[in-house]
Amino acid sequence: MKLFELCGNDREVRFSPYVWRVKLFLQHKGLDYETVPLHFVEKEQLGNVTPQTFPALQDGDRIISDSFEIAKYLDQTYPQNMIFSTQTELAQASSLLAMVDRIIAGGLFSMVALDVWKQLDEQSKEYFRKTREARVGQTLEDFVADREDRLTSFRQDLAPFRKPLESFSYLSGDEPGWLDYTVMGTFMWARTISDFAFLEENDPLYQWEKRMSELWDGAFVERKRAV
Amino acid sequence: MKLFELCGNDREVRFSPYVWRVKLFLQHKGLDYETVPLHFVEKEQLGNVTPQTFPALQDGDRIISDSFEIAKYLDQTYPQNMIFSTQTELAQASSLLAMVDRIIAGGLFSMVALDVWKQLDEQSKEYFRKTREARVGQTLEDFVADREDRLTSFRQDLAPFRKPLESFSYLSGDEPGWLDYTVMGTFMWARTISDFAFLEENDPLYQWEKRMSELWDGAFVERKRAV
Repeated sequence: MKLFELCGNDREVRFSPYVWRVKLFLQHKGLDYETVPLHFVEKEQLGNVTPQTFPALQDGDRIISDSFEIAKYLDQTYPQNMIFSTQTELAQASSLLAMVDRIIAGGLFSMVALDVWKQLDEQSKEYFRKTREARVGQTLEDFVADREDRLTSFRQDLAPFRKPLESFSYLSGDEPGWLDYTVMGTFMWARTISDFAFLEENDPLYQWEKRMSELWDGAFVERKRAV
Repeated sequence: MKLFELCGNDREVRFSPYVWRVKLFLQHKGLDYETVPLHFVEKEQLGNVTPQTFPALQDGDRIISDSFEIAKYLDQTYPQNMIFSTQTELAQASSLLAMVDRIIAGGLFSMVALDVWKQLDEQSKEYFRKTREARVGQTLEDFVADREDRLTSFRQDLAPFRKPLESFSYLSGDEPGWLDYTVMGTFMWARTISDFAFLEENDPLYQWEKRMSELWDGAFVERKRAV
């Protein structure tokens, strides 16, 4: 399997939250894969992959985009270590996904957007600034200027994701599962491109993040490159 | 089993969202129960029930409060028709619960708080106004004054709860489950005490609500009273 992913000017810097999620899904399933790290402006190398978005997972003739679709595809095609053990887990996950993307990915983006830009190659920098500034309606610098002030409400908004940790070691129970991978993938993106300390060290999610980073001896972080 | 619940001046009017959730859990489990409808200011009739909050489910010698704790208790004690089939469903539910309470229960309260007050007996009216106005920092009338303007953002905030309906008939999959009962219980509360049309008729959640209200021939709505 080949996983097409976004990388920084330094191609070792991988920072799509959605790609990180897929890497964790693949590790959970025990599936081997190679990665193809591409700059934002190198999408033409995806060839006839449609839609041209990351992650894109190539498995033989098939190409699947969207991390949630990839999770479902992996369960259908490789039934070991199911990501979703019941239909209810999957249905609940579809609600939770929207919350993770809004609260965590959206919240972090408003704090690390400029740090993303700094990691990019020159051509992608231009592309990223233009598209993102149009989306948020201000310069990236202005967008993140008050990030310290926004931390309090961001940390409050995380409250629902701390709830499972009152009873379990992971967000999915005694063992890590889809919600863990989805939140952790989002954190990995921010950690990879930014030093911004968005969690306090006494936050249960901070301890959880440490446990997550030690899974499989951290194997999901290191992967050989195809190009 | 006895279910202590809140009621209006007309004791047929039951309006705790958390009690409605429990009624749906009990129906799902196929368990029979009687209800004890009490006014806000009749809590002393709970006797030595601690904490003195609704719902309170009495099952023999045991009394359980909090709708989520009641769901777990029912699964442990009566293993038929499990509310949570896997630990992951339960762990995910604990996150989702915080979102339902914040987005749906909190959102609806900001629109129907005055309607709740109108349904109460005279003594409870005084108690409710005093405690709730202290909490929200304004009169109930001012609190709900702009509810029409708040509808747009409320309906947008519901987006994550529409996600499962893109693939399934219910929020929990092909069959109703915990998330359905928890959201429906919250809607039942608002519907019972208010005519405020918080959903548009073309909203997938509106159609889902209709399907939910037809479960068990609507049996969960009608229950004989113990007092």
